[in-house]
Amino acid sequence: MPDRTASAHDLVITGGRLATPMGSFEADLGIRDGRIATIGEGLSGAETIDARGKLVLPGGVEAHCHIAQESGMGIMQADDYESGSRAAALGGTTTFVPFAAKTRERTVAESLDLYAARAAGRSHIDYANHLILPDAEPETIAALPAAFARGVTALKVFTTYPKVKIDDAAFLAILSAAREAGRLTMVHAENDAMIAWMTERLMAAGLTAPKFHAPSHPALAEEEAIFRAISLARLADAPLLIVHVSTARGARLIAEARAEGVKVWGETCTQYVTLTHHDLDRPGREGAKFVCSPPPRDAAAQAALWQALRMGTLSVFSSDHAPTRFDETGKFFNGLDAPFPKIANGLPGLAARLPILFSEGVVKGRITLERFVALSATNAARLYGLAPQKGSLAIGADADIVLWDPQTTRTLRAEDLGDNTGYSPYEGMVVTGWPVLTLSRGEIIVRDGALTASAGRGRPLTPGTSILDDQPGMIAVERDAAQRLGLGGAPDR
Amino acid sequence: MPDRTASAHDLVITGGRLATPMGSFEADLGIRDGRIATIGEGLSGAETIDARGKLVLPGGVEAHCHIAQESGMGIMQADDYESGSRAAALGGTTTFVPFAAKTRERTVAESLDLYAARAAGRSHIDYANHLILPDAEPETIAALPAAFARGVTALKVFTTYPKVKIDDAAFLAILSAAREAGRLTMVHAENDAMIAWMTERLMAAGLTAPKFHAPSHPALAEEEAIFRAISLARLADAPLLIVHVSTARGARLIAEARAEGVKVWGETCTQYVTLTHHDLDRPGREGAKFVCSPPPRDAAAQAALWQALRMGTLSVFSSDHAPTRFDETGKFFNGLDAPFPKIANGLPGLAARLPILFSEGVVKGRITLERFVALSATNAARLYGLAPQKGSLAIGADADIVLWDPQTTRTLRAEDLGDNTGYSPYEGMVVTGWPVLTLSRGEIIVRDGALTASAGRGRPLTPGTSILDDQPGMIAVERDAAQRLGLGGAPDR
Amino acid sequence: MPDRTASAHDLVITGGRLATPMGSFEADLGIRDGRIATIGEGLSGAETIDARGKLVLPGGVEAHCHIAQESGMGIMQADDYESGSRAAALGGTTTFVPFAAKTRERTVAESLDLYAARAAGRSHIDYANHLILPDAEPETIAALPAAFARGVTALKVFTTYPKVKIDDAAFLAILSAAREAGRLTMVHAENDAMIAWMTERLMAAGLTAPKFHAPSHPALAEEEAIFRAISLARLADAPLLIVHVSTARGARLIAEARAEGVKVWGETCTQYVTLTHHDLDRPGREGAKFVCSPPPRDAAAQAALWQALRMGTLSVFSSDHAPTRFDETGKFFNGLDAPFPKIANGLPGLAARLPILFSEGVVKGRITLERFVALSATNAARLYGLAPQKGSLAIGADADIVLWDPQTTRTLRAEDLGDNTGYSPYEGMVVTGWPVLTLSRGEIIVRDGALTASAGRGRPLTPGTSILDDQPGMIAVERDAAQRLGLGGAPDR
Amino acid sequence: MPDRTASAHDLVITGGRLATPMGSFEADLGIRDGRIATIGEGLSGAETIDARGKLVLPGGVEAHCHIAQESGMGIMQADDYESGSRAAALGGTTTFVPFAAKTRERTVAESLDLYAARAAGRSHIDYANHLILPDAEPETIAALPAAFARGVTALKVFTTYPKVKIDDAAFLAILSAAREAGRLTMVHAENDAMIAWMTERLMAAGLTAPKFHAPSHPALAEEEAIFRAISLARLADAPLLIVHVSTARGARLIAEARAEGVKVWGETCTQYVTLTHHDLDRPGREGAKFVCSPPPRDAAAQAALWQALRMGTLSVFSSDHAPTRFDETGKFFNGLDAPFPKIANGLPGLAARLPILFSEGVVKGRITLERFVALSATNAARLYGLAPQKGSLAIGADADIVLWDPQTTRTLRAEDLGDNTGYSPYEGMVVTGWPVLTLSRGEIIVRDGALTASAGRGRPLTPGTSILDDQPGMIAVERDAAQRLGLGGAPDR
Repeated sequence: MPDRTASAHDLVITGGRLATPMGSFEADLGIRDGRIATIGEGLSGAETIDARGKLVLPGGVEAHCHIAQESGMGIMQADDYESGSRAAALGGTTTFVPFAAKTRERTVAESLDLYAARAAGRSHIDYANHLILPDAEPETIAALPAAFARGVTALKVFTTYPKVKIDDAAFLAILSAAREAGRLTMVHAENDAMIAWMTERLMAAGLTAPKFHAPSHPALAEEEAIFRAISLARLADAPLLIVHVSTARGARLIAEARAEGVKVWGETCTQYVTLTHHDLDRPGREGAKFVCSPPPRDAAAQAALWQALRMGTLSVFSSDHAPTRFDETGKFFNGLDAPFPKIANGLPGLAARLPILFSEGVVKGRITLERFVALSATNAARLYGLAPQKGSLAIGADADIVLWDPQTTRTLRAEDLGDNTGYSPYEGMVVTGWPVLTLSRGEIIVRDGALTASAGRGRPLTPGTSILDDQPGMIAVERDAAQRLGLGGAPDR
Repeated sequence: MPDRTASAHDLVITGGRLATPMGSFEADLGIRDGRIATIGEGLSGAETIDARGKLVLPGGVEAHCHIAQESGMGIMQADDYESGSRAAALGGTTTFVPFAAKTRERTVAESLDLYAARAAGRSHIDYANHLILPDAEPETIAALPAAFARGVTALKVFTTYPKVKIDDAAFLAILSAAREAGRLTMVHAENDAMIAWMTERLMAAGLTAPKFHAPSHPALAEEEAIFRAISLARLADAPLLIVHVSTARGARLIAEARAEGVKVWGETCTQYVTLTHHDLDRPGREGAKFVCSPPPRDAAAQAALWQALRMGTLSVFSSDHAPTRFDETGKFFNGLDAPFPKIANGLPGLAARLPILFSEGVVKGRITLERFVALSATNAARLYGLAPQKGSLAIGADADIVLWDPQTTRTLRAEDLGDNTGYSPYEGMVVTGWPVLTLSRGEIIVRDGALTASAGRGRPLTPGTSILDDQPGMIAVERDAAQRLGLGGAPDR
Repeated sequence: MPDRTASAHDLVITGGRLATPMGSFEADLGIRDGRIATIGEGLSGAETIDARGKLVLPGGVEAHCHIAQESGMGIMQADDYESGSRAAALGGTTTFVPFAAKTRERTVAESLDLYAARAAGRSHIDYANHLILPDAEPETIAALPAAFARGVTALKVFTTYPKVKIDDAAFLAILSAAREAGRLTMVHAENDAMIAWMTERLMAAGLTAPKFHAPSHPALAEEEAIFRAISLARLADAPLLIVHVSTARGARLIAEARAEGVKVWGETCTQYVTLTHHDLDRPGREGAKFVCSPPPRDAAAQAALWQALRMGTLSVFSSDHAPTRFDETGKFFNGLDAPFPKIANGLPGLAARLPILFSEGVVKGRITLERFVALSATNAARLYGLAPQKGSLAIGADADIVLWDPQTTRTLRAEDLGDNTGYSPYEGMVVTGWPVLTLSRGEIIVRDGALTASAGRGRPLTPGTSILDDQPGMIAVERDAAQRLGLGGAPDR
Repeated sequence: MPDRTASAHDLVITGGRLATPMGSFEADLGIRDGRIATIGEGLSGAETIDARGKLVLPGGVEAHCHIAQESGMGIMQADDYESGSRAAALGGTTTFVPFAAKTRERTVAESLDLYAARAAGRSHIDYANHLILPDAEPETIAALPAAFARGVTALKVFTTYPKVKIDDAAFLAILSAAREAGRLTMVHAENDAMIAWMTERLMAAGLTAPKFHAPSHPALAEEEAIFRAISLARLADAPLLIVHVSTARGARLIAEARAEGVKVWGETCTQYVTLTHHDLDRPGREGAKFVCSPPPRDAAAQAALWQALRMGTLSVFSSDHAPTRFDETGKFFNGLDAPFPKIANGLPGLAARLPILFSEGVVKGRITLERFVALSATNAARLYGLAPQKGSLAIGADADIVLWDPQTTRTLRAEDLGDNTGYSPYEGMVVTGWPVLTLSRGEIIVRDGALTASAGRGRPLTPGTSILDDQPGMIAVERDAAQRLGLGGAPDR
């Protein structure tokens, strides 16, 4: 076999420290045809980038963001695939997976067509879509194999919000369908009735300011819905991921279920480890910037979530980027004085995700560098069927790579973060560590904070099977039911 | 020493051992005007009963039974207030609290009228009614104060069964209304969608025999619904009682919530500590006799429930008497070959409750005599507002008393148990301990297994406030929400 | 209706509300020959006390106090049986159980002789002794049957303090011996090495003020020792009571073990629910008044202990009265400037126990009146073999009775509390509820805060079998070991 | 920089699937100067090994084995560094870390000298030593920095066995010393007194057969000692690893502590997931082959341990190779009929470790291939300071590599396993997956089951800092104690 190593690298990154979820080491990294061809010592190629003193990371994988999507309240998110992918790239993210949202009026195929059209020719980075399902009608379930074949990574359901809320029966049907395809179901877990009950009481008491959004979404609502979702997943023996866990007990319920072998994973987001409900009480209407669901909680919850990120109870760290402008096209689409239930939910965070996780996590000693790589890139890629193409420095993987300066200090400013929201909930936050160079399939797309890519170069991805790392060995419930009754081959009818 | 209280007592029970939830001692018990007037040494009266070698117990309080009620499947229970109270009395129960069931078609007042009419002039023992609510419509909620004033003890809701199932919003409304009246809400907690999903799969697989009723109601369905009910009660800061707990995890969830100060109590029933799902697999159609919901589980669950009864996690031991005949008027109202979902749920147990709890519990060393008294009489009376009139040997209490022979051995036979069901799930079981004499308000109603009372002597009771023994001090959530936000007197609007 | 029991009662208490652990009711209480003869309506007797508006309680049973005993540090406690029983009586306690302390130099019999002599002719109230064992030498174990026959209620061991500390082997031997006699073993559970390690580090850092006593006894030391003690009791299948539980996790470990059927009970004391480590930081040397072991913790621990008292995880509420004067005969026996490890441990609390438990517990809604009776009197009497003679309003029981005014308000002052310590850690605390009349065996011993009894009227008690209410059904480990190996009748040798 | 890639490889492994703890991918692996120089596509070198269809794994790291060591009972293990390393190499292990055992008679330096001499010139593979400490005398503690500098990886202590048992005070001193050096302390955690108590009772009952070794080491003894060890480590804020966890509750205690941020890790061994106490009951004296401490438990424990291995509660999978011949030089050094307490503990397992973990774990779907790599090699290397030199396929790491055939099936036979014990507890076990070629620093040391290395080629390693992956952020207790008391800079003295 001819050795092509030397001359055949299009680009070599030399002298950096390659970081993986299980350790880091110094090596050169050689890229050929947009893929990682070689990792080793003394490589050379047509071009060379000097990475001494820098970390060489797999590009971030953002698995929870809302792009070119109508929100639950019906307004269009401020970012499309161009601006959203720009923000992602500026923050060191090289793959993102926005949602394609089915509505009750649209079929699955129509929904996927619509989002494919919205994405087409606009993204700077590679992308895929999770599919939001607001129903489990027979035709919806029947359309799923085709949807997965077309590139849908995972399904997502909601236990709250009128337009998307599903009941337990529909949840079971969706879990079963995802299981048969070897895919995850994601769930936004909050008890709808509890939120309504609290909202009604707060409103009746005249407690209408933005800050009352926080008590209107009590921790109990999340905890209850997480327990229920886990129970349903247990019954269906289906893998489940709880998105944006915000409470200590929520994390604990996930940890306990995992310890019992349930196939459940958890995600938390930037806002839940950096903001609190006090941010919703900033002067004037400023608190509206922080209205999202579930709401940020308190310092104790933050500590519990960091602990859960460190120990592996939570596997994915996302932004839940929901770009909602601080004006009457966004937050105040119901008027500047709208009471809290009429304020649009959601806040941006695509570009800030990695810098904040690195600075608050690694630099402050809460998580290791290894864990940072897992949480920001590898785990999401694996869970959503994008590995090994994305999310790790594996031979043959796409050369989606970030050069990270671990020592530079930056102050976060909305105007630098690339999205269209017009504000950042993290405005003024000082972070240590920054992506100084970002490559997508071997091409430099960001250099020194400036986008060098062109819209439309990003490609839709075709996910494979989810890799469920700790694959707990639940016995299928059907088998179990039969066995418990001592049934052998020929069941009694 | 001469006794001089003679003429002041209508009846004196001499030489027995009086059992209370906190110890037993030998004393005479004097009755005057149907009430307990005196407990002491050397009493005498107009009449005397020699109780040497016997236990003197407060008569049993049965808090969970279905009498003269249409089942969830629409068939009338086999017992009316006459036969039902006869069975109760024969088994040492002197107070029972059947359900008055509102339907969605009937108002609360109409429902109470209907059940008052069904009860009138028929019962051998005193009685009250819990009110089943299948909805939380504004007019239903508005009718509750009058219902409580009229004698309703507690509310009951279901999370399953089409005709009575309520959703979380209705559950919260009902919990709130009960809380304002200082009353308990009882809940039949099973996840409806899980049952439907399992049933559908079993049926689709042709698994239709009675025994498949068991896996169609998986333990997960109970556990999920218990966690949810507790969460809703926490939010509403309302007292809650989980009826017929059948699973180890269900009991554990209750214990954990109680340890955190949640106002939750639990009940289990005779069938869950004596039967298992194997009973549903008896030959032929025999298993149908044991079809009830939740179904009996396994030996491990029985052990966990005994432990929970002993330690106080469960406060009430009931029969869930649901007399369903083993013929086409009952179990097989859909035909003798009906698949399991079409078999009528429910089994009888009014008369067997105390003998089985005593024999399997006290005699076998699983619970103390003290705990027997608490579980069979005192706790239910207190929780449902019937104390101190019922359920304890207190001065001034109604003289509802059972003389219990702790050493006699009996074999349970359906024909001796007084109800109209025609079979007993406990047929042939040998028990040690039996009620040899039963008094209601000082009147002998059963002697040596023979009913001596006349139908209609039983009176409707007017409950007072529930006594929630361990009254955990939850802070009302409204206050909590305000406090968490640092609100003082004048909330920000 | 005329009452004809007059001449048969020496004394009748009329019109009060009799409180029991399972409810209260209004009745008269008739006393004859020093025992409770009758409870009923319309009683009369030679003398009458009007108890309208008062609670009629069983006199308190104090199960943890140090009287006429050399402390672990070698100084004599400030109270003997005269002053100690005076304080008890003034606070509504009618039975107390100080310790008889064996030393390594004295035999069991010598130790019991010594304490019998110290008690003889001095006590105002009835008493018994727990036996402290600092060793498990064969002659010590061999002496236990005689000790129990002579009146020892229970054994007590320590896992810390040089003069009394036993190791795990001795602990197992003592547990086994107590189990064979059907008695409880009590344990002061703190890890000795942890305390030494912390003390050494604090001292080395020059942190010598009284307040550093608190961190020198870390919560971990208690938690570890509780887990270990429970494990040893599990192995030996022996009943165990953890004294003065001061931590939330300690209580939780007990609750978890009880839920698994382990025969373990817990006690906490006045200081752990009313004081915190901040009290050790009072100005000057004042903090020394609060030096006791384990030390008071913080507000969160207090809340957890109240919850554990309410729910039954903790069964006994004691004072751990260890009267140590605030001078060079007590706290400062090593000099006024002694560093914290040289300050004598212990604080008084005999008289304040019931008033504080009532006021902070019942009046503030943390526990019910029922629970107050159980915690202050009934449970200790039952656990230590003094029931039914002491601790409840049972027919035939000793007429040890307290009339309690639930509404009077008092300020606690050391000079009113009857003991010889010279200060009270609760000085100035305002309590609602007070014992206005106290009877011992039918004799008034305190009236309106004045002692009316004579020293020496109190008698030593002879305990019977412990009544372990929730008697969990552990299988003896020997049987278990054999069974696990599938052994039948004839074991393989 | 000249590119040397092509011609400079001494050896290239082509076409294999490289397995890492975070995924596997196909690539070539190039070795230069005994280190991994390159991973990539199309590599070539002086020599080539075709690895198509094979897994390319980092060589196993065995972190728990007894080589050339006197056992706790005083007999010399059957393997020296030659035979031990031979067995390791044959089983795919390329690094091992036997113990150097200090005795109370020898200094630390003498002990290290002794073991260095025993190892010198004999090993086929690289090695390091953990240091067993039977005391914490001042001179012992003082000698530790030099010991670590000399190559000691970690300290190990025992809570049982007369010759090595330490008490809690010594444990704290050792934990503190290890913490200051950034090293782990390992602990054999069983309660010594419990074992003695059970042993005495079993012997007194004449239950002396080998099988009674199992109940003489009850699960409670392990659980208690684990809780205690964790508590001591919490106090000292020191990292701790519990070796050979054998019980479900033991694993749970570790999981709970980790969830609270305690720096604790766990290990289990081959025998605890494949054998049970029934093996100790094999006919005749055969059971003695399985006598080890703790003993194998039951099927439920096995399931719990697999779950803990899968989920990361347990981080290391070892053999606890303690080669004890089945004759009077080993098991029966006290005679062929010795009662169980006189039978030598320990069983071999060096060579069988990886094949069994792969076959029972990966092939049977209990763990992933990723987890296999972590458990067998990477985690131990990281925890014991041998990473990245050992345990992973990192550029620059030693080329310790195993080619693993995942599909070949083998029957385990003692005579193939390379050690000197003379029997295998896994005799006859059929495994799928086998190491077909093993390299140490680029040199082939085993090919097709035949050792090709020469004794003495293995080198002693110099460990660096432990990498504690999930580095929980405990606050040092000293700081905490001060803070709790509100101390600022200048402490009050």
